[in-house]
Amino acid sequence: MNILTSLSELRANLKYMSGSLGLVPTMGSLHEGHLSLVKAARMQNDNVAVSIFVNPIQFGPEEDLDIYPRNHDNDLDILQSEKVDIVWIPDVKEMYPDGYQTYVTVEKLSRYLEGARRPGHMRGVATIVTKLLIAFAPDRLYLGQKDAQQSCIIKRLVADLGFAIDVLICPTVRDIDGLALSSRNSRLNPDERKAAIVLYKSLSEAQTAFANGETDASRLRTLITDVIRIEKFAKLLYVSVSDINSLKELHYVSDRALCSIAVKIGSVVLIDNIVLEDS
Amino acid sequence: MNILTSLSELRANLKYMSGSLGLVPTMGSLHEGHLSLVKAARMQNDNVAVSIFVNPIQFGPEEDLDIYPRNHDNDLDILQSEKVDIVWIPDVKEMYPDGYQTYVTVEKLSRYLEGARRPGHMRGVATIVTKLLIAFAPDRLYLGQKDAQQSCIIKRLVADLGFAIDVLICPTVRDIDGLALSSRNSRLNPDERKAAIVLYKSLSEAQTAFANGETDASRLRTLITDVIRIEKFAKLLYVSVSDINSLKELHYVSDRALCSIAVKIGSVVLIDNIVLEDS
Repeated sequence: MNILTSLSELRANLKYMSGSLGLVPTMGSLHEGHLSLVKAARMQNDNVAVSIFVNPIQFGPEEDLDIYPRNHDNDLDILQSEKVDIVWIPDVKEMYPDGYQTYVTVEKLSRYLEGARRPGHMRGVATIVTKLLIAFAPDRLYLGQKDAQQSCIIKRLVADLGFAIDVLICPTVRDIDGLALSSRNSRLNPDERKAAIVLYKSLSEAQTAFANGETDASRLRTLITDVIRIEKFAKLLYVSVSDINSLKELHYVSDRALCSIAVKIGSVVLIDNIVLEDS
Repeated sequence: MNILTSLSELRANLKYMSGSLGLVPTMGSLHEGHLSLVKAARMQNDNVAVSIFVNPIQFGPEEDLDIYPRNHDNDLDILQSEKVDIVWIPDVKEMYPDGYQTYVTVEKLSRYLEGARRPGHMRGVATIVTKLLIAFAPDRLYLGQKDAQQSCIIKRLVADLGFAIDVLICPTVRDIDGLALSSRNSRLNPDERKAAIVLYKSLSEAQTAFANGETDASRLRTLITDVIRIEKFAKLLYVSVSDINSLKELHYVSDRALCSIAVKIGSVVLIDNIVLEDS
């Protein structure tokens, strides 16, 4: 496994690589969710690359950049055992040198959900992913369904900018009690960790209601809101029942919808989503 | 010479190309200025590609998109005789399909000069050039000094996004009377064409003054303004004496400055510039 830090090293390394390349972009602090992406990439490509970079420009001034979990040694052990070929761990100066001023925006899709809650966040995501795609020129890019809006925006970006890359969205990996895996889960205390199951619980109840014929989006939102209100450690930041492609809020769910929530548990904001779909 | 229209054809063509590639991006209506870029590319690369695309997103609603000169047959004859390998002439739907919403901005450098005069213009330029660089993945990119701010912005974009591409800026090509070649010159009537030499005349006088020791930027700007005021067909839109890298206006020229103007001659806006430099 080649562990690289500079862009020039990365380019030199890629230049002599033959066969297909799958890329898994991460912010490190790897968990089973990331590993499911790495395993998918390993199965489908001759070469697998993982980037580890906590991207400062996707964090707002009041957000958790400084306390975002970082654990490179453990990350590298995991990636080694998954037979990853290249790990790129650039520092901030390498990625954003002095005078840096170029940004990529995916305009309409960034207005909703996390984009509305975190101004500048989706611009930061679109910019770093563009830079990673230019640096690696992979054949396939692996993303997680847990960050549904990111995946949606990156698929649009890849199509719009004309990258010849397949974007593969892998299912959310959950703990046994249903909590979606997230690096931020490590910041929950035991009480908060218990409370955090309310995210998946509320989404599951919406899914059951939809399966039983509830197609009114506002009633589905109310149902979720009511489930979360009961949990005293939880504060609902938003609940959305939106078109799965445009992310626009729906009045009624005809065949499919993205149902997404952001919930603050103690001081930690968690997001989760589920796709409501006619079976 | 392969003349291609779709991105998929272009990709298929490039896939089997060997050796280095030089790219000359154009909006067609080719003149000797473009040809100097093609000739430079021809000398320095195994393969030469030219794109022809009048990019709608870099024109404002009140601008000359619809009447921008187009002359594909003549362009192709010229490129054939220059032994160009690939010409890409995508249509607008190919470049900006339905739902397109991804834009690239080079923030600070877009605030000045043409960026200030034409809101959205530099975003349109940065976006199309990013798309061309992703599509062609050239080794070298050829641009003209006449569009000094564009060149400056594209150099920054290439560095910021991490493209492994050399950007080469070729000197402005001028008619015998000094008028910088531009596709828009064809829209001048004979009186306006005569009047248009005032752009280069004013810049040349500034250069002479600088060579004779004038380093006060505001006096250089006044000198240019006074030369242009005398020409009754000409209306000065801006005059700038700026730092050649940051494009910030200068108080004094120490060793080098970019001296640029935009002048309306009849209904046509022309731009020109000169680099003031200690010899």
